[in-house]
Amino acid sequence: MKRREALLGSALLAGVAAGDAHAASDKRFGDVVIPPEREMGKEKHVPDITAPSSVKAGQPFEITVEVGKTVPHPNTVEHHIKWIQLYAQYEGSQYVIELGTFNFGATVAHPKVTVPVMLQNNATIYALEHCNIHGLWDNSVEIRVS
Amino acid sequence: MKRREALLGSALLAGVAAGDAHAASDKRFGDVVIPPEREMGKEKHVPDITAPSSVKAGQPFEITVEVGKTVPHPNTVEHHIKWIQLYAQYEGSQYVIELGTFNFGATVAHPKVTVPVMLQNNATIYALEHCNIHGLWDNSVEIRVS
Amino acid sequence: MKRREALLGSALLAGVAAGDAHAASDKRFGDVVIPPEREMGKEKHVPDITAPSSVKAGQPFEITVEVGKTVPHPNTVEHHIKWIQLYAQYEGSQYVIELGTFNFGATVAHPKVTVPVMLQNNATIYALEHCNIHGLWDNSVEIRVS
Amino acid sequence: MKRREALLGSALLAGVAAGDAHAASDKRFGDVVIPPEREMGKEKHVPDITAPSSVKAGQPFEITVEVGKTVPHPNTVEHHIKWIQLYAQYEGSQYVIELGTFNFGATVAHPKVTVPVMLQNNATIYALEHCNIHGLWDNSVEIRVS
Repeated sequence: MKRREALLGSALLAGVAAGDAHAASDKRFGDVVIPPEREMGKEKHVPDITAPSSVKAGQPFEITVEVGKTVPHPNTVEHHIKWIQLYAQYEGSQYVIELGTFNFGATVAHPKVTVPVMLQNNATIYALEHCNIHGLWDNSVEIRVS
Repeated sequence: MKRREALLGSALLAGVAAGDAHAASDKRFGDVVIPPEREMGKEKHVPDITAPSSVKAGQPFEITVEVGKTVPHPNTVEHHIKWIQLYAQYEGSQYVIELGTFNFGATVAHPKVTVPVMLQNNATIYALEHCNIHGLWDNSVEIRVS
Repeated sequence: MKRREALLGSALLAGVAAGDAHAASDKRFGDVVIPPEREMGKEKHVPDITAPSSVKAGQPFEITVEVGKTVPHPNTVEHHIKWIQLYAQYEGSQYVIELGTFNFGATVAHPKVTVPVMLQNNATIYALEHCNIHGLWDNSVEIRVS
Repeated sequence: MKRREALLGSALLAGVAAGDAHAASDKRFGDVVIPPEREMGKEKHVPDITAPSSVKAGQPFEITVEVGKTVPHPNTVEHHIKWIQLYAQYEGSQYVIELGTFNFGATVAHPKVTVPVMLQNNATIYALEHCNIHGLWDNSVEIRVS
């Protein structure tokens, strides 16, 4: 409620009419991302991340991320996986780094990519995927870097 | 802990060696997205969303989203806003719809876009932005649709 | 023909079997991009670029690019404009700079964006757009920078 | 010249002042894409496409595309490969289909991806890549589909 109230307050101070001001919301992006547990054991949307448990600092290694590995996801123009994003967050950092964003052509590409990655420190790898019908799903794995 | 344990269990059952299996994590993507409150009153990273409070169903209206509106963000090759994503979530739905993803060329484009949008029902609009140094930031507004 | 022959030659030298080698092609990407003239006077796919004829160096100005301005393009899940890319090429340079890539959600976003841009020299602005059915279309305008 | 003249003509008819109208250009996007021959034998920018020469219709097979395979390309924040796009054009069609667009995080990801693809007919595969300093480069291979 705090954000909405603060913004409405500043809008009023600035003489902005209520109808014209954009209506602030306290909702957070993270709340609309669906967790892996929702499809536990029958993953159709959860991005499956394959990566080594431990790697050498600065040395390239491969990450593979795939949607529909356990239960195949439809791949039609009407219903498909649009993209997968990969991020890394180093231990102790509050910021994530984008490893890549991978868009897939419906019907002609399968939502799976393998990409070489180089890390400098222990990291959590996050995958976020978007289904044009069923929204956003995430997953994460941890990689030790020595 | 549940997810990690379940995955380690299934890895063991499948005869996967611990060192080769990817190390499941219980961390969620939403936890790495930084909230608007972090920069309250001096927003440099928060995506500012300008949209009408209420619109007509199916009628195009403009949404403008901008980073650095209150306090300008650097725009150099070394430090810049890479992209802004816009989503809508209809009231009562658990799924978000991607309105657009907008990538900006460092130094030559300012991270601000205006795009026409058509909605069918009351919706929350989410913006997610990525700074190449300071990670991910979100914001949201609500729009009434009649 | 030269490229194909050179590559086949090096494949043979390297002992690569013909069936395994990738078959080099002399076709160029530019040849698959459809010119504006194809729809002269009834543009449905051509990206329409609105920009000032002349601007000041380093000063932000707005570029608007839209598909379907003259004749509206369908906007359905089955047939829609996926994205528009904007590039600048400075006079005398052989390299283009990406101003931005803008992806549009089918049915919920109209393929039109306005974005602030800063240029340092006379430039040609290129727009490239992708229709999921009718491929790639381009357009260009020239901007004088003083 | 034809396009510029036609547009200037319609601008005059519409009473648009010359200074406000956008200055049409006859330049084509394809002309700014640099051909593989430019770096023959010492490819640093050319996207190298690895794919089978012949595949079965509708059966998934892997395409790998990489930049800097022969001569490594720098991978720094100041100078890196931003993305690679993959397209297919079926024999006899004038339209290309986007197989995927793959964005790489500078310094943390190497510009190489492997992705499963399904084709229905003989096709030319095009790759387009973008270096933030040296612009756009393309390459193509042909795949027989039976």
